[in-house]
Amino acid sequence: MNVPRRGFEEAEFHQRLNRAQELMNAHGLDALLLTTEPEIRWFTGFLTQFWESPTRPWFLLAPASGKPVAIIPSIGAHLMGKSWIEDVRCWQAPNLTDDGVSLLSEAITEITGPSGRIGMPSGHETHIRMPANNLARLKERCPSTRFTDDHSIMAQLRMVKSYAEIEKIRYACDIGARTFARTETIKILGRRHDAIIRDFQILCLEEGADWVSYVASGFGQDGYEDVISPATSTVVVASDILMIDTGLVWDGYFCDFDRNFSVGQRPSLVVQDAWKKLREAVDAAVSAAKPGITAADLFETMRAIVSPDQEGSSTGRLGHGLGMQLTEWPSLMAGDETELTEGMVLTLEPGIETKDNHMLVHEENIVITAHGCELLTPLASDDIPVCDGNKP
Amino acid sequence: MNVPRRGFEEAEFHQRLNRAQELMNAHGLDALLLTTEPEIRWFTGFLTQFWESPTRPWFLLAPASGKPVAIIPSIGAHLMGKSWIEDVRCWQAPNLTDDGVSLLSEAITEITGPSGRIGMPSGHETHIRMPANNLARLKERCPSTRFTDDHSIMAQLRMVKSYAEIEKIRYACDIGARTFARTETIKILGRRHDAIIRDFQILCLEEGADWVSYVASGFGQDGYEDVISPATSTVVVASDILMIDTGLVWDGYFCDFDRNFSVGQRPSLVVQDAWKKLREAVDAAVSAAKPGITAADLFETMRAIVSPDQEGSSTGRLGHGLGMQLTEWPSLMAGDETELTEGMVLTLEPGIETKDNHMLVHEENIVITAHGCELLTPLASDDIPVCDGNKP
Repeated sequence: MNVPRRGFEEAEFHQRLNRAQELMNAHGLDALLLTTEPEIRWFTGFLTQFWESPTRPWFLLAPASGKPVAIIPSIGAHLMGKSWIEDVRCWQAPNLTDDGVSLLSEAITEITGPSGRIGMPSGHETHIRMPANNLARLKERCPSTRFTDDHSIMAQLRMVKSYAEIEKIRYACDIGARTFARTETIKILGRRHDAIIRDFQILCLEEGADWVSYVASGFGQDGYEDVISPATSTVVVASDILMIDTGLVWDGYFCDFDRNFSVGQRPSLVVQDAWKKLREAVDAAVSAAKPGITAADLFETMRAIVSPDQEGSSTGRLGHGLGMQLTEWPSLMAGDETELTEGMVLTLEPGIETKDNHMLVHEENIVITAHGCELLTPLASDDIPVCDGNKP
Repeated sequence: MNVPRRGFEEAEFHQRLNRAQELMNAHGLDALLLTTEPEIRWFTGFLTQFWESPTRPWFLLAPASGKPVAIIPSIGAHLMGKSWIEDVRCWQAPNLTDDGVSLLSEAITEITGPSGRIGMPSGHETHIRMPANNLARLKERCPSTRFTDDHSIMAQLRMVKSYAEIEKIRYACDIGARTFARTETIKILGRRHDAIIRDFQILCLEEGADWVSYVASGFGQDGYEDVISPATSTVVVASDILMIDTGLVWDGYFCDFDRNFSVGQRPSLVVQDAWKKLREAVDAAVSAAKPGITAADLFETMRAIVSPDQEGSSTGRLGHGLGMQLTEWPSLMAGDETELTEGMVLTLEPGIETKDNHMLVHEENIVITAHGCELLTPLASDDIPVCDGNKP
């Protein structure tokens, strides 16, 4: 596929702001106060790995009318100056006595008046990225301002992706797919796990990833014991099942899907059987996914196949939203009654127990379309590929 | 150098806990409640890229006496089970109605009694990584517990690195140094910036980085306009100065240093002059750094050379702590009166303006020793190397 354009048209940010302002007005909020990387990037396009540094707080005030105001450390002035945001207020951070608090409190009072109502994302999958002491000081400096939850406005907004966002995720998935297609060129049999995962990351970069922010991998006989451990010096041996799960990033957007390989020989019958159910579950979910059903419905479609005797799943859910972050709302699980709508990007991630404490997990990415869904990843093969590790 | 052992001896975690408990007792705290990746890893060794997912909260309760208790999502049970932590309590996350709050509140009451005093890191460079609504619910469920600041206990603890931690940072620096030594093999002249940075990340991995979590790079005639922007499709041309700053990770520890290259020809006189001052500033700081002086003293040593006419610095500081995160306490800046002690790992990061809005930044890493400091990075050359981009 062609490489999408980097960044976004300014019109898209206007549309995002309009959607946000409709919701703010519906909930009686005068502004949103945002502190985390994806929240600020969603409104501004401000993209940098500098968030890796926890030192400096960053603030965006998105008012119920008018353009957002960025209140940020001066080290970000140049990059934010290239965005569509006109009002960029800076302080020289770090500042041990007043790290943006007075500048922020002045902006709040100026923009929302002395007794405005400010929504801060406070629900599931959020946190407030500033020192708790400084949040308390901010509230002291704005004694009549009412700081409340954002009524999940940011979650609602971010859950539905624009065309341009979907193209970025699609391209990240394409890079991941090309990487997995080359994974059989990596020597695996008899090699250390960490060396394999290092080679895999190199392939991701060679295929065009900007950053390889997340690679999880498990391996073992008849499956793996967990899916979040880092690679170790343990050697992968014949008949191990090796799973590699990639969250690589292109232009700030993630893919998140995995592939399983059977090392040196065909997988055991127990693995073949589990794999068949995982593929069936994904096929069923791809058929079922469409606007109007809920995240819980899509979960139930897969659960009925992979865990017919259980109500839940040991991983807590069988998929999730995907976008600027590796995992986003909604959760494909019982109880998440989020209605799927066109533009939502989801992972389908059924898991199945193969033997005591061992599992097999499969993951694909989809986007919800007007009448169904479209796969963003090339569906894994009907059989787990045998990786003999001896190819060039 | 030899590759250090991964992980830590259990004895080290006992020592860490002892130090923490002394400070807790000195401040009258019954426990620390920790929610972020480095805080929890410092006590447990729990290392995973899974924190990239914002979905699930994780908690560690470190009491003033006795061993820490992990209250975590069940997806982490296996990995935490391999740590020295014995008491690991899990819930199936995500849970939209009670995402660990009741389990955590029960643990707090059990371990610190109904009216304990719990410290949560709330000062500079911290945040609380859980939904604000859930923190409010937790406080409701523990009505007599007093939740306070941690009196910067975690900052004090983490600022001073153990021998094993220093060896990991040293090895990350060594990987970075080997990578920079090979950077002249990358074609640079006439090539897109993003392709160059992709190649650089590949070299980091080839030299042994586990993860390449942070690469910043700027380029331009006589310097660059900022040091936090992501790479773009702009082409690097002759006489550009290209700066690459790497925050690669080995076994969970960062290096953070940069190198400047002059593309295709010797740098201009203005760049040569600026570079001479940066190197002088680093030399002076290496000579001055020792236990007993303050972070502000070390800042002043460099500032007097790079900005003799200014009190401050446009980047806000001229270096910082380094370890499990790319940047940590202290800050080398006016006003940070942190006294340097043996075992602190610091970056020396002087910057200088070369022309309007353009700068040159240089960065090395040191560890404070009993009577001075030791460089963890091989000091950059006396002249900025010319990178012709035409080598094999």
